[in-house]
Amino acid sequence: MSHASQTTGQGSPKLLSGLFQLLKPHLRELGAFLVSQVDSFEEEIRDYVADCIDTGGKRIRPSLIFFSGWQGKDAVDPKLVKLAAVVETIHLATLVHDDIMDEADIRRNRPTVAKTRGNATAVLLGDALFSHAVYLATQFPTSEVSEKVAIAMRNVCTGEILQTMQRGDPNIDLATYYRVIDLKTAELFQVACYLGARLANRDTRYVAAAGEFGRHLGVAYQIYDDLTDLIGSEEKIGKTLGTDIATGKATLPLILLRDRLPASEAGLLRATLAGEQTAEIDLWLSKLAALGIIEEVREAILSEIRKARRAIEPFLDQSDAELLYTISQLLWNQVEALQSDRSDP
Amino acid sequence: MSHASQTTGQGSPKLLSGLFQLLKPHLRELGAFLVSQVDSFEEEIRDYVADCIDTGGKRIRPSLIFFSGWQGKDAVDPKLVKLAAVVETIHLATLVHDDIMDEADIRRNRPTVAKTRGNATAVLLGDALFSHAVYLATQFPTSEVSEKVAIAMRNVCTGEILQTMQRGDPNIDLATYYRVIDLKTAELFQVACYLGARLANRDTRYVAAAGEFGRHLGVAYQIYDDLTDLIGSEEKIGKTLGTDIATGKATLPLILLRDRLPASEAGLLRATLAGEQTAEIDLWLSKLAALGIIEEVREAILSEIRKARRAIEPFLDQSDAELLYTISQLLWNQVEALQSDRSDP
Repeated sequence: MSHASQTTGQGSPKLLSGLFQLLKPHLRELGAFLVSQVDSFEEEIRDYVADCIDTGGKRIRPSLIFFSGWQGKDAVDPKLVKLAAVVETIHLATLVHDDIMDEADIRRNRPTVAKTRGNATAVLLGDALFSHAVYLATQFPTSEVSEKVAIAMRNVCTGEILQTMQRGDPNIDLATYYRVIDLKTAELFQVACYLGARLANRDTRYVAAAGEFGRHLGVAYQIYDDLTDLIGSEEKIGKTLGTDIATGKATLPLILLRDRLPASEAGLLRATLAGEQTAEIDLWLSKLAALGIIEEVREAILSEIRKARRAIEPFLDQSDAELLYTISQLLWNQVEALQSDRSDP
Repeated sequence: MSHASQTTGQGSPKLLSGLFQLLKPHLRELGAFLVSQVDSFEEEIRDYVADCIDTGGKRIRPSLIFFSGWQGKDAVDPKLVKLAAVVETIHLATLVHDDIMDEADIRRNRPTVAKTRGNATAVLLGDALFSHAVYLATQFPTSEVSEKVAIAMRNVCTGEILQTMQRGDPNIDLATYYRVIDLKTAELFQVACYLGARLANRDTRYVAAAGEFGRHLGVAYQIYDDLTDLIGSEEKIGKTLGTDIATGKATLPLILLRDRLPASEAGLLRATLAGEQTAEIDLWLSKLAALGIIEEVREAILSEIRKARRAIEPFLDQSDAELLYTISQLLWNQVEALQSDRSDP
């Protein structure tokens, strides 16, 4: 690998800073491909579709696809671009639907479709995006792509249904929490990495390892995302802290807190999650800190990142697995940064 | 054809009465297949899925599939059963989403998912049903099924978005009306007939003809459905008359009425559709009758049925096209019955 300087297992600092540079030509092609898809929709709804595509999103799943099937910075593979478009379009469709359910007015500093065009249009536009993603998936010579993508889509939706059903339930256990994030987040990360390697014709063992990497990275990412609801800087993360407590969503920190608190306080937290008590965010933030739970959650994320890395470790010397390794370092660094950002309540 | 007595072009009366008998073993298999799919979903949502499947619906699209690829009353083809499950599941998913948008509490005498489980769950459950239908579609050896199904899904959603955008617009023209119903209804009818014949290995010309039949029958069916919003018996049809006028949906009878009325009355109808005037249903019903527009709409439906029939006429002697012909007779008869049901306002 010409662009990698070491495979020591801690992530190459040179690679880390160069990661976005490496991705640039690939994400540029993806952007152009997505824009070209707007014309596949009927004229009247093209503006809506264009708004959804142009989100300024982080393109995490596409990045995983490009790195899993890496062929060099300037070797942009049209197959991977199309796969990235499929997976990103599914992700964008879920966001359009999420914004209806969350009654969100703003996403990434822009008004949501649900807000500007109404819920009915948001439901249908999400459906149309889903359908178009599936159509693109059927354009691959092998049905493996559309099959895996369809299953992932169903799992993402199922994970979100379970989460919706569980809202306000203060007794969610750890196994259930992990099962839901596996369905709603890890599944699509897994498919992105698996199919990225697959379409690049990597050998079967590497394809499976990349998928395994994706799954654990997805779990890590979702726990991280849930943790940022409680700590970190509101401006940096771009969301209001404590929303999950206030809306009865039992995330990992809150589950651990509930199980560590003395009975009476645990009862108050339960009542809060059940919506029977006003959420006193500051109280719970101080308890989380005092009981070392932030640290414990941080460790849970790092543990998933380690599992992700272990999956691809056998391939570090003979492939571009180092790129995946390095992308996991980005999340690791963000977790570390969160820790130091934390405002003591 | 052993079960057909004539191919005179008016639909065999014997076949007509025997149509449901012929379909029974096929629809029974479809029902069993759909029920067996419930277990593909995560445990917690199986009840929801089961509720959606068990709708007591008319199974129009599956019937078209079975007849397009007909192999005999007791020759139930598993490929056609699976295709029928794909198309019916997509249809059921659209109904789950429709009920959110229409804020419907009841469908076919049962509370809707949106009503009993909330909008969030209804959005996600519709998505999960869509995804599962796509997954089933990917299980065919040829990607033609999933490709055509994905395009049809996108068109159905697009048609519904256009209809949503046009609600309250009193100036919709005929071409736009026909374009929307082609997307939202005729497309899935077309795909049902086309793929039914295709999977039964019929010759290419018949496959195309069956698709063409489906498209025109779909247009006819949607105009009929729109007409029943204005005439017919509320109990028989199971819906409140005049909902389209009241909610600003310009259907064929209302478009024709608007274009036939003297300017001042047309202005009042426009204002009603735009939501600036309370809908005086009885007034508009009497105008529709007085100007002969019910008759004209009826003729538009029959004209589409004739086009559907023309598509398959060349095949009436050499295939089971007579079954499709006879199914079109069912709609024809319903249109005639509507006419005689009409309560003079």
